[in-house]
Amino acid sequence: MIKTDILIIGAGPTGLFTVFEAGLLKLKCHLIDALPQAGGQLTELYPKKPIYDIPAFPEVLAGDLVDNLMEQIKPFEPGFTLGERAEDIEKLEDDSFIVTTDKGTKHHARVIAIAGGLGSFEPRKPPIPKLTDFEDRGVSYMVKNPESYRDKDVVIAGGGDSALDWSIFLADVASNVTLIHRRNEFRGALESVDRVKELKDMGKIKLITPAEVIDVNGNGHLENVLVRKNSDPKEDFEMQTDFFIPLFGLSPKLGPIANWGLDIEKNAIKVDNSLDYQTNIPGIYAIGDVNTYPGKLKLILCGFHEATLMCQSAYQRIHPDKKYVMKYTTVGGVTGFDGSKKQAPKAVVKSID
Amino acid sequence: MIKTDILIIGAGPTGLFTVFEAGLLKLKCHLIDALPQAGGQLTELYPKKPIYDIPAFPEVLAGDLVDNLMEQIKPFEPGFTLGERAEDIEKLEDDSFIVTTDKGTKHHARVIAIAGGLGSFEPRKPPIPKLTDFEDRGVSYMVKNPESYRDKDVVIAGGGDSALDWSIFLADVASNVTLIHRRNEFRGALESVDRVKELKDMGKIKLITPAEVIDVNGNGHLENVLVRKNSDPKEDFEMQTDFFIPLFGLSPKLGPIANWGLDIEKNAIKVDNSLDYQTNIPGIYAIGDVNTYPGKLKLILCGFHEATLMCQSAYQRIHPDKKYVMKYTTVGGVTGFDGSKKQAPKAVVKSID
Repeated sequence: MIKTDILIIGAGPTGLFTVFEAGLLKLKCHLIDALPQAGGQLTELYPKKPIYDIPAFPEVLAGDLVDNLMEQIKPFEPGFTLGERAEDIEKLEDDSFIVTTDKGTKHHARVIAIAGGLGSFEPRKPPIPKLTDFEDRGVSYMVKNPESYRDKDVVIAGGGDSALDWSIFLADVASNVTLIHRRNEFRGALESVDRVKELKDMGKIKLITPAEVIDVNGNGHLENVLVRKNSDPKEDFEMQTDFFIPLFGLSPKLGPIANWGLDIEKNAIKVDNSLDYQTNIPGIYAIGDVNTYPGKLKLILCGFHEATLMCQSAYQRIHPDKKYVMKYTTVGGVTGFDGSKKQAPKAVVKSID
Repeated sequence: MIKTDILIIGAGPTGLFTVFEAGLLKLKCHLIDALPQAGGQLTELYPKKPIYDIPAFPEVLAGDLVDNLMEQIKPFEPGFTLGERAEDIEKLEDDSFIVTTDKGTKHHARVIAIAGGLGSFEPRKPPIPKLTDFEDRGVSYMVKNPESYRDKDVVIAGGGDSALDWSIFLADVASNVTLIHRRNEFRGALESVDRVKELKDMGKIKLITPAEVIDVNGNGHLENVLVRKNSDPKEDFEMQTDFFIPLFGLSPKLGPIANWGLDIEKNAIKVDNSLDYQTNIPGIYAIGDVNTYPGKLKLILCGFHEATLMCQSAYQRIHPDKKYVMKYTTVGGVTGFDGSKKQAPKAVVKSID
């Protein structure tokens, strides 16, 4: 059982910044995210794209924003349960909660902060019979650990940035990488498209277009896929492979959280914004894109504000007997949980002769 | 008469970021600030001090934060009325406002955003008879335009960073700089104290401690000050000077805004935070440290959020017939008022042979 003060569901920018504001209040955080890495959409969908509306960043790449947040929260030693989806919640008699993931990992906390963004990103699955039989047995919809493909045969399907980028990355890891797309045209960053062409010319990526994987087979683990080439006439052939990774995009779903008894309105969780972004269940807060209230804007900078106010309320719930007096970081500095301290240089008092 | 869409009172970080969010909505902004430059407290009181709680900045100097904001808002061409204090407000029949400063500059806008921080910074004045008679005639409490001291004699009084820093700066501009402090000890950044000592040893700054200016004299314009050394009337002496700049700190005062008919609670303006941070007077908003509502935290990051929601409401007031559909900057880019455009690189659609 993982124990923490605030259990944050969703490791996007709002969830990450919560760790910092909680840390200033000496509260520990643990984050759960269905994606294999922190950063939410920013890391998974558009790490190389610029954002222009983060205050005091005239321009910042989404991936860099996440890196900065990770550095900022480091002194407060957040825990992570990644690649698992928060599934069930149970309220204990002492008003604390146990949240269990789809993989069975249990987390205990007095405060739950749902920072789930647009929901957990569920992969779009191609309509192939038996595909689900091979999930985690050769079929994956995202790359969690590139090393698991070392010296194996990998078939990737898709025509967007994810398919291009993972083909490029795995070309140096796997023994064979085959990229299959149902059109001749790929849609992605120019440099990725050009790089795939180079790797194809070097024989490091095999390209089959226009084509689709229409069946998967194997004895327990995946052994081969059936490819249909959309030539005239159509041509079907079997290909041996250890892994098949269809990368057809992710679509956000509120998911199991929708069944936790929270007030939901248009796929978002209703909160009382006049105070602390608490939901209808005391002790469960919703911050960032996942919540809704009058005037709500789904912007990262709003999530930062919501996280900050939420932490004050969480502090009161966890320490009902204490009163927190806010200190500005410029005045009080930032003290990490390991005792490390960042602080403005003090003024000297000195006479001049 | 200066005309704009949103007149922002206070050019601190919240006021500055308002220009950006308004600009995305194609609304023009003009800012009034009593200080001689943009940035509010950050520039005036602690430009070289680090802030640790701006999201995605593990550490940023206050002055750099202001520089970044100025760069971010540049495409939206804000206007500035600096060194003047918003004094009077008049509501016209068409529900627009005219705001007049203490220098008589008039501004017309349909929306007023008070982003006044802790108030306008009023200089602490030493208790010298006749001091106010020489204001703007040789006596100033802040340095608005260093060039006006070129080749003149300047006496600065004070023992903190402002007194140290302006003595250093003006040593290269004025013909004579004299720094007077009632104690032998100065309190400031180590490097400033050391630099003043160097300049003193080089004869570029004259230092008189412990001493005080106890009288000012002149015929129309300041001509000399009376200095008392060691608190001993027997050591009083006159010094000829063109300028006297007492730098004894600034104390924030809500100022004339307090008389505008706004609901005030503990030196802050009450707003309805559930929607848009509007005050009791429709069309006047209060954002950042100057406002109060249940759960309010006086943090820069909260001001950013408040400014953003406020701009949506301002848009509705200015364009009651239009519906604004928010576009993410990553998707839609940022188009400056001069037509300049910042935009994420588009995906290419390209076949690979």
